[in-house]
Amino acid sequence: MSESIYVGVDLGGTAIKVGICNENGQLLHTYEGPTETDKGVDVVVSNIEKYVRHIVEQSPYEWDQLKGVGAGVAGFTNVREGVIVLAPNIGFRDVPIRAILEERIGKPVKIDNDANVAALGEAWAGAGKGIENCVCYTLGTGVGGGIIINGKIYQGFSGMAGEIGHMSVVPDLEAIQCGCGKMGCLETVSSATGIIRMAKDAVERGDRTSLALEDQIAAKEVFDAAKAGDEVALRIVNRAAFYLGKSMAAVAAVLNPELFIVGGGVSKAGDFLFEEMRRVYAKLAPEPLQQGVSIAPALLGNDAGIVGAAGLLLRS
Amino acid sequence: MSESIYVGVDLGGTAIKVGICNENGQLLHTYEGPTETDKGVDVVVSNIEKYVRHIVEQSPYEWDQLKGVGAGVAGFTNVREGVIVLAPNIGFRDVPIRAILEERIGKPVKIDNDANVAALGEAWAGAGKGIENCVCYTLGTGVGGGIIINGKIYQGFSGMAGEIGHMSVVPDLEAIQCGCGKMGCLETVSSATGIIRMAKDAVERGDRTSLALEDQIAAKEVFDAAKAGDEVALRIVNRAAFYLGKSMAAVAAVLNPELFIVGGGVSKAGDFLFEEMRRVYAKLAPEPLQQGVSIAPALLGNDAGIVGAAGLLLRS
Repeated sequence: MSESIYVGVDLGGTAIKVGICNENGQLLHTYEGPTETDKGVDVVVSNIEKYVRHIVEQSPYEWDQLKGVGAGVAGFTNVREGVIVLAPNIGFRDVPIRAILEERIGKPVKIDNDANVAALGEAWAGAGKGIENCVCYTLGTGVGGGIIINGKIYQGFSGMAGEIGHMSVVPDLEAIQCGCGKMGCLETVSSATGIIRMAKDAVERGDRTSLALEDQIAAKEVFDAAKAGDEVALRIVNRAAFYLGKSMAAVAAVLNPELFIVGGGVSKAGDFLFEEMRRVYAKLAPEPLQQGVSIAPALLGNDAGIVGAAGLLLRS
Repeated sequence: MSESIYVGVDLGGTAIKVGICNENGQLLHTYEGPTETDKGVDVVVSNIEKYVRHIVEQSPYEWDQLKGVGAGVAGFTNVREGVIVLAPNIGFRDVPIRAILEERIGKPVKIDNDANVAALGEAWAGAGKGIENCVCYTLGTGVGGGIIINGKIYQGFSGMAGEIGHMSVVPDLEAIQCGCGKMGCLETVSSATGIIRMAKDAVERGDRTSLALEDQIAAKEVFDAAKAGDEVALRIVNRAAFYLGKSMAAVAAVLNPELFIVGGGVSKAGDFLFEEMRRVYAKLAPEPLQQGVSIAPALLGNDAGIVGAAGLLLRS
């Protein structure tokens, strides 16, 4: 029997990335083209179809070997109905993408949000390979999460499982309001946005830090300053790590996962981020919830989204 | 075809309760006899067998209709191996109860800890009937938890999922050490033990409260005083409820369950306990994690353990 292949689509605001995976989650070919968000829904959807057909045609595989297409998108998705409810950066609102693509491509299609597909990608073929139960943190502009139970994405009652960035972990006295409207969410301190805010606050109140010399502060400047020994920057990164570790101890008491996978831009801060997360986790999680449990960096980088999207066909 | 029945066993320190359930979780007959813990493991196991045979013989059902026996026990269990690892109140350590009972009774046997079986009982035939994803809190001497995913008990990596009582929720400045060795666990404030401790502390430091007149303070005295308008008692119950609500908001961000079920002795404190939990949950959980989600009292009372144990055969 000829090998089955799966195409994953990472639907972003500026580019659509597509990739072919085999049934072990190995990423074999990739292709990238512009999203053309400004030209509207129809053009974006046509582009997805075009790129999917293109990558299969350019590959050594036959169209018949393609068993399905999965797509991940930043935004709210209704997984059961296959609808992109709201994806501001591509201008989609209530687009029944699954039905449209299934008709155009003639193959089964599944969708999910970017945090969930990244989690599935890592669980399937990255840091979580071979592990059935893990929790994935994606530290970017926000803090995204994905819960993998028995090798599959867990959606919860209304598709909101894994909204780990909105765990309230910061004590009232230090808490600020999150974009979701609530106070003290993990995302307010452990995302790139949170780190930049803490750095700007430090500069504004006159803390002695090399960050005061920067014209613009991005998360990377804070990490670089921390690595260079700047104490203010180090304190900020440690604070981000502290609440990540604290949230992991809470997640462990609920779900007892074997592995926490941490990816996204902020996870590149360096070893000290992981060391602090592990220290806090060891401090707060009861002993039996530590045995055999690890906290590890994501392995697939930006490919996690494509791989996980391809995996939706097999693992959802 | 004749109806199938399942026997559930609630293995306690002083009494063994057994009950017959049909396949809808309806509890049809119950029987209770002494555990005789002091006579050792063999006698306790013989008693289980005796009571199981007795209740089926006394019922209108034939032995052939019995499809299996489930047992719940307070302590550490290895569900996969069917071993009671440590159950101090019945004096069991490393007892391969499943293998022993299967040989003696000649039917499939499953075991789990008391918090998990109570959760399954409520999910199967109590407050969670018809709901696939819920989280159950049992507020007794400690705070037990059970996670129900797709109608079944979720065990996690090492069988420790649902250890909700050991979520660290109390801020450092107010935290005390938990029996597990960690600081600020939910159990330190929201269990009967925690409530009694807070009451004693209040009396000792001279707070003006009717509790000062009690010879011995049990949780019930604190609830009664709170209902009668005692402000100190009310503050204590509200504090227990506050951290329950806070932990629920955290659980929701991870698992997005449809329902939180709250049972156990402390849940009898009264409506104000539930009102405060709901208020705090509404304050801390993002809006989409509130829609359609409820916090409800357990319905089965002490029978939850027997029903859930019987349910282990169908739902694990």
